[in-house]
Amino acid sequence: MHKADFMPSVVMIGAGNVATHLAPAIERSGAGRIVQVYSRSLDSATQLAEKLSGAIPVDSLESVVADADIYLISVKDDAITDVVRGLKPSDALVLHTSGSVGMEALAPLSMRHGVFYPLQTFSKDVELDVERIPLFTEGPTGEIEDEIRAFGAKIFANIYHADSDLRKKMHVAAVFACNFVNHLWAIAAKQLEREGLPFEILQPLLEETLRKALTNTPAASQTGPAARGDSKIITSHLQLLQGDEHDLYEILSKSIMSKK
Amino acid sequence: MHKADFMPSVVMIGAGNVATHLAPAIERSGAGRIVQVYSRSLDSATQLAEKLSGAIPVDSLESVVADADIYLISVKDDAITDVVRGLKPSDALVLHTSGSVGMEALAPLSMRHGVFYPLQTFSKDVELDVERIPLFTEGPTGEIEDEIRAFGAKIFANIYHADSDLRKKMHVAAVFACNFVNHLWAIAAKQLEREGLPFEILQPLLEETLRKALTNTPAASQTGPAARGDSKIITSHLQLLQGDEHDLYEILSKSIMSKK
Repeated sequence: MHKADFMPSVVMIGAGNVATHLAPAIERSGAGRIVQVYSRSLDSATQLAEKLSGAIPVDSLESVVADADIYLISVKDDAITDVVRGLKPSDALVLHTSGSVGMEALAPLSMRHGVFYPLQTFSKDVELDVERIPLFTEGPTGEIEDEIRAFGAKIFANIYHADSDLRKKMHVAAVFACNFVNHLWAIAAKQLEREGLPFEILQPLLEETLRKALTNTPAASQTGPAARGDSKIITSHLQLLQGDEHDLYEILSKSIMSKK
Repeated sequence: MHKADFMPSVVMIGAGNVATHLAPAIERSGAGRIVQVYSRSLDSATQLAEKLSGAIPVDSLESVVADADIYLISVKDDAITDVVRGLKPSDALVLHTSGSVGMEALAPLSMRHGVFYPLQTFSKDVELDVERIPLFTEGPTGEIEDEIRAFGAKIFANIYHADSDLRKKMHVAAVFACNFVNHLWAIAAKQLEREGLPFEILQPLLEETLRKALTNTPAASQTGPAARGDSKIITSHLQLLQGDEHDLYEILSKSIMSKK
């Protein structure tokens, strides 16, 4: 018999961006063998199943087997309740990958349930180094969480415990560090576009700014007119700006100056 | 005789972060031969000269030779006027590397003057791929600017024309895309620190967010509660925040929602 025969069987519920990265990573790392991929769309389920070694694509929850070892639910937050109603696992480990949904949503399915939340933004068509992504886990008991971590440790190098409260705070931090940051890039892109310049002229500067923030700390790397308290430049910049851009420039400069 | 004998002789005025990257790049690319490095600190001048093939470090402007082909002034904006008073070049190309100072500051030194502004943030101890950095040039006539571009083209792959007005607008864009972005990272780092988590847990997410913004556009890549109009999440996040963080979350979310 092969070692693979002792690998847990996993049902992947969902075939979206997260599932599309997680399922192959589970097989590559030897953490488990995906036996089924469920999606409401048979096309999506089939597409993901084709990237796996022997998973059967299914598009109805009634077709999901009851005897798998692990059910990994990676669907939109709103759809988790429907999935929970449709599944009938017998004594399995049942996990979801959401940063916002509490683990208790899975309690009706199994005593052995929990959260398996990788902190990353996934696109279907972009390969990621899954191992580098931090994984956050939560379980109803230390024993069950250890079981979740043991499964996760085969796939991810960095695993942290995070309960609902901490996941929410991390989400807030990610909103600042990613969503809001991206919005400022969109504003800069528009400002350059008005002058006929592509956003890519900022690429070396953006990459170096990120490198510095990660090497030192962002606070220690802060530069610019507000960090220098250069009110002459700040005033002259504000004169060029209108509406949202003006207000954001002002409040962000004030916020930077208040940290000095 | 070697081809090097026909290379223009360059005096590097300044030995700070920009000069420390530019001077070796000029020699590596064959764009010129640095004959002197001037700094008010002989130590700094010597440190940079040691990275070059035969430059003499000097710490007084009177010691700067009068017969070089190019004078490249890369000192703090406030110091440019003093340098201009102290130099006496005879028929040379005189350039400064500032994004904020007008080219006319150099007019007293030479008819052949202009701006040679690389758009990047430089640290002395970090190697950069200088060739990828965009260079912005300006000269008083098309002929003189062509001369500046010909010199720059040996060092940089992407050269754009930018007058004072455009440089100012680019600076504003860079303040949004780098200074303000870094401040949001500092806020996120502090939020994570409060929970005992290192800023580096965001690294894969930050790198992927930047990659997406550069591959698509930042506007097309916008995600998060505000982009989805998810006012339930926004409200619950605002309840966690106070002071600056609360106000910034609110104004940035509104700004994102107004773009949808």
